[in-house]
Amino acid sequence: MGEMGEKEIPDIIVGRLPRYLRVLQFMAQNSQQTTSSQELGDPLGISAAQIRKDLSQFGEFGKQGTGYSVSYLVGQLQQILKVDRVWDMALVGAGDLGHAIARYQGFADCGFRVIQIFDNDPLKIGSYVGHLRVQDTADIIPSVRAAKITVAMITVPAEAAQEVASWLVQAGVRAILNYAPVVLNVPETVHIQYIDPVIHLQRMTYYLI
Amino acid sequence: MGEMGEKEIPDIIVGRLPRYLRVLQFMAQNSQQTTSSQELGDPLGISAAQIRKDLSQFGEFGKQGTGYSVSYLVGQLQQILKVDRVWDMALVGAGDLGHAIARYQGFADCGFRVIQIFDNDPLKIGSYVGHLRVQDTADIIPSVRAAKITVAMITVPAEAAQEVASWLVQAGVRAILNYAPVVLNVPETVHIQYIDPVIHLQRMTYYLI
Repeated sequence: MGEMGEKEIPDIIVGRLPRYLRVLQFMAQNSQQTTSSQELGDPLGISAAQIRKDLSQFGEFGKQGTGYSVSYLVGQLQQILKVDRVWDMALVGAGDLGHAIARYQGFADCGFRVIQIFDNDPLKIGSYVGHLRVQDTADIIPSVRAAKITVAMITVPAEAAQEVASWLVQAGVRAILNYAPVVLNVPETVHIQYIDPVIHLQRMTYYLI
Repeated sequence: MGEMGEKEIPDIIVGRLPRYLRVLQFMAQNSQQTTSSQELGDPLGISAAQIRKDLSQFGEFGKQGTGYSVSYLVGQLQQILKVDRVWDMALVGAGDLGHAIARYQGFADCGFRVIQIFDNDPLKIGSYVGHLRVQDTADIIPSVRAAKITVAMITVPAEAAQEVASWLVQAGVRAILNYAPVVLNVPETVHIQYIDPVIHLQRMTYYLI
């Protein structure tokens, strides 16, 4: 997946960067100027050594003794993760979860905004979620393609998710966040992430008595 | 976190088990009798070698040549993850997201059910989400404690999440799934998992052009 001439960074490291950015942005909001690997790792349960090793893959961000500049590191991580810009997103599924996500305030400062919403329910098509009109899922391919959208979220029932994913891929989407509890088949060139509360809950019950 | 006398299993391995269980349960629903490490790993992007290594931490589940019995492995993983029983859960936050989660059909066969819902909005307290009456967050500590609930989900706004988490911990909760986009302070004996769409989206945009 790495670009030509670039060093391939393990996906597990890439996966930790958004969590570092999340903590750093909290620090920035609280007007904190500098931080250390230790302080950055503590709330995430990640060791200072791991943080230093992860960040060293991308360059020299800190100084021995003085630590990291919070705002500089925020800027660098935003650039690395390509969220120093705004990604337009399509959302498919205007149920409770779709509504909650469409209205989620947390996207704005993190590089994302929902600009299209789709549903196949005639009662929902034409209604509004915030300022967005719900469109017919039958229009996904032309609409998403026309808007050059490459990032999408799926919040439809499990049995409809695969068909929706295929339409999104045909429309040019290259990154899908799937909330439906089903594993989707997409081409290797398309990135997919799953959000599934059961997976997280089961990971914790392992440790309970 | 491991119990006395038990081998300590790395958390990263424990974290993969629910994903294996998810795929195996799909196979079982489709009346599939046996599977292989390869077939199990493919939809998850995990190598056959990794699957074999992970499962070998817990015992001998497969036979050379014939692979794994799907139903046997489902049963074993459910036992390991302690979801061969039903965990009662409390849900705090009866907004769009809370509604979506309370009505989520996916918990039932996976070891979980929501039995209490809380909100601090006087307009929501006393209303129903499905068959559950929304209770006042002021009653979290006595209610959760009386029901001996140890697993909870937080779907309140970021600024309210820490206070809610502290109440839940005081009430005896030992595992929290947090949807609020904020890192929470809980004692080391309490397990916490985060669900945050931004983290997943940023992990994918890294790879986009």
